Parts: sequence; structure tokens; C-alpha cells
Amino acid sequence: MAYIELPEGLPGIRGAMAFRPETARPLNDLVEFLLHAPNTLTQGERELIATYVSSENDCYYCQTIHGAIAAASLGGDEVLVKKVKVDFWNAEISDKLKALLVIAGQVQKGGKHVTSEAVANAKASGATDTEIHDTVLIAAAFCMFNRYVDGLGTTQPRDEAMYRERGKMVARDGYVAVSKEYLPASAMETV
Amino acid sequence: MAYIELPEGLPGIRGAMAFRPETARPLNDLVEFLLHAPNTLTQGERELIATYVSSENDCYYCQTIHGAIAAASLGGDEVLVKKVKVDFWNAEISDKLKALLVIAGQVQKGGKHVTSEAVANAKASGATDTEIHDTVLIAAAFCMFNRYVDGLGTTQPRDEAMYRERGKMVARDGYVAVSKEYLPASAMETV
Repeated sequence: MAYIELPEGLPGIRGAMAFRPETARPLNDLVEFLLHAPNTLTQGERELIATYVSSENDCYYCQTIHGAIAAASLGGDEVLVKKVKVDFWNAEISDKLKALLVIAGQVQKGGKHVTSEAVANAKASGATDTEIHDTVLIAAAFCMFNRYVDGLGTTQPRDEAMYRERGKMVARDGYVAVSKEYLPASAMETV
Repeated sequence: MAYIELPEGLPGIRGAMAFRPETARPLNDLVEFLLHAPNTLTQGERELIATYVSSENDCYYCQTIHGAIAAASLGGDEVLVKKVKVDFWNAEISDKLKALLVIAGQVQKGGKHVTSEAVANAKASGATDTEIHDTVLIAAAFCMFNRYVDGLGTTQPRDEAMYRERGKMVARDGYVAVSKEYLPASAMETV
């Protein structure tokens, strides 16, 4: 049971968002832009970064739903998603994404853990300043989302099919569209 | 020097926000609502939570600017702000705020560190579900902001007068108003 009275039937962050729509709005706008909007990093690459950080933070809900969104973005490749979580160095991903995952892992430990060597490696493998910025902010944002979800003691059902179905929906329609039920309006809506 | 080419002359998160206005918008909307909008927790209490978490994360820029905003909200009481950072149990603050700072400190370590005892104590000292929610989200959000600011290696000048002046301005006008120079428009603007 959650530490505060959250609306029933909405697992993970969804219950918290329905409880406080005023903060759900900017949280959804942030994740919509970082993970779903057009970017030189693919949707799958960005969702893998979010999934990896959530796994390092041991947040079941976040790593499972973003793992499902990542898999949906990658043609259903759930094996790749699991491989990235446990051993990304030997996963079938680009050297650039490996270098960005190193930075994401450093951010997960703390901002001061990021090294100039890791950033130089990312640049050498072709990462732009914007891609490095977005990687740092995605990793930092998931250090927030993971703490928000676990820190409120939210319900996190062990039901892979549920995550898989919602993952497909979010991968296709984005975060703001699937959260309309509890979001106040905003001019940022582009969906 | 920052790890990527950020606009010059803007310290801490301000350079990162000017670099990426698309993410600056939801980040400012989030902090505007959490720390500046009307709330049953005072502005000073909420800024103290943000300052404490930033101090625990050892982020110089964030703990100094939010410490300055907290002091400005508390009639200029910089001694109280410093006391809360190093020894809040013996600071002149309410039992409710002490109980919420315990939860914030747990969130800083990780979402799973939050205990039902800490939440029960906060409730026993008069904290509402919404105040507990907001404390968890403020603490989680500063685990993001701190990592964003330090993870990009932003410039963080050691100039107390600069932070003090800007702190007064933010305490009075809010976050969105002082960041207009690099924010795209949004219907959420209420300032």
C-alpha cells in the first residue's frame, strides 16, 4: 500500500500523477520532449538510457514500463533490452550509445561522478553536445522519477503483459497523449 | 569549463537552460509549482527542503542559490538556512518540517530508503498527504537538478553576493519570471 492515499487502479507513477495533476503536467511535458519528440537519438536509444538508469536505481515499475517502451520502439526486441540492463558492453548497440550509457551510469551515481574522459569518449564516438546534454538530463530525470515512484511506495504490479501493452501504446502515441485523463491543458500539447 | 559548449555568462543551471529551452520550459514549470506557487507549506519551508537535499548531494550552485531564496523567504535568516543544512534537528523549525526533512533525506539516498515510520511521524506531526507528496517530489526533483548541474560540469562561481541578489529576485518573482530570457511561451504562465 502506498504511503499516502493515491487513486486506486493506477500503478506506479500514474497514481501519483492523478493525485497531483499540477505536477503531472510539467513531468509529462519533460518526458515527452526528452524521450518521444524528434531527436537525433532514436526513441529506442533514449528509452534504453531511461531503462538502464531505472534498473541501476532498482525501480521495478520504471525499468519495466520503459523497458517495454524501448522494446516496442526496437521492433519488439525484449532480449536486447534485458542485455542492455545487465551487460551493455556486450549488447548489440552502437559504440556511441555505449559511451552515452557510461555517462548515464555516472549521473545515476551522482553529478560529480561524470568524468571528462567519459565525455571525450562519447564525442570521439560521434555524440554531439546536444546528445550529451540530453543523456545527462534523461539520466538525471530518471533519478527523479525512480525516487518519486518508490519514495511514495506506489503499487507496482508484477504483470508483464500489462507493461507490454501499455509500452506499445506509449511508444506509438507518446506520454502526454496517454495521460490526458489526469492532465490539465497546456499550450505545449502538440499531440 | 563545462563538458559541452554552454552559453557564456550564465552560471549553474541557467547555462543549461539557455542551451536547451525546450527542456527549460517544463523544468521551470515544475519548480515554479513545487516551490513558488501557493501551498500549505510556506515558501521558506519548501526552499529549505530543496536546499537540504542539494547540500546532501553536494551541489554548490543549487544549495547556494536555493539557500539564498530560502533566506530571502525567511526575512533574511541565513543562519537558520546554514543550521538546517548541517543539523536540522537542532534548528528553530517546526517538528513537522523536521519530520518532512527526514523523508527528504531518505529520498535523497534512494526511493526505497523511505520508511513507513518516517511517513507515520510526519503525519503524527500534522503533515497532510499532499505535503508528504510534495516533499517526496521536491526531494526527488533536486536529485535531478543537482545531477543536471554537476553532471554537465557547469560554471558555479563562488560569489555569495551574486546568489544573495538573485535569491531575493526569485523569492519575490518566482522561477518562470526570472527565466523568461530563454523560455518558450506556455499557457501555464501565471506570472
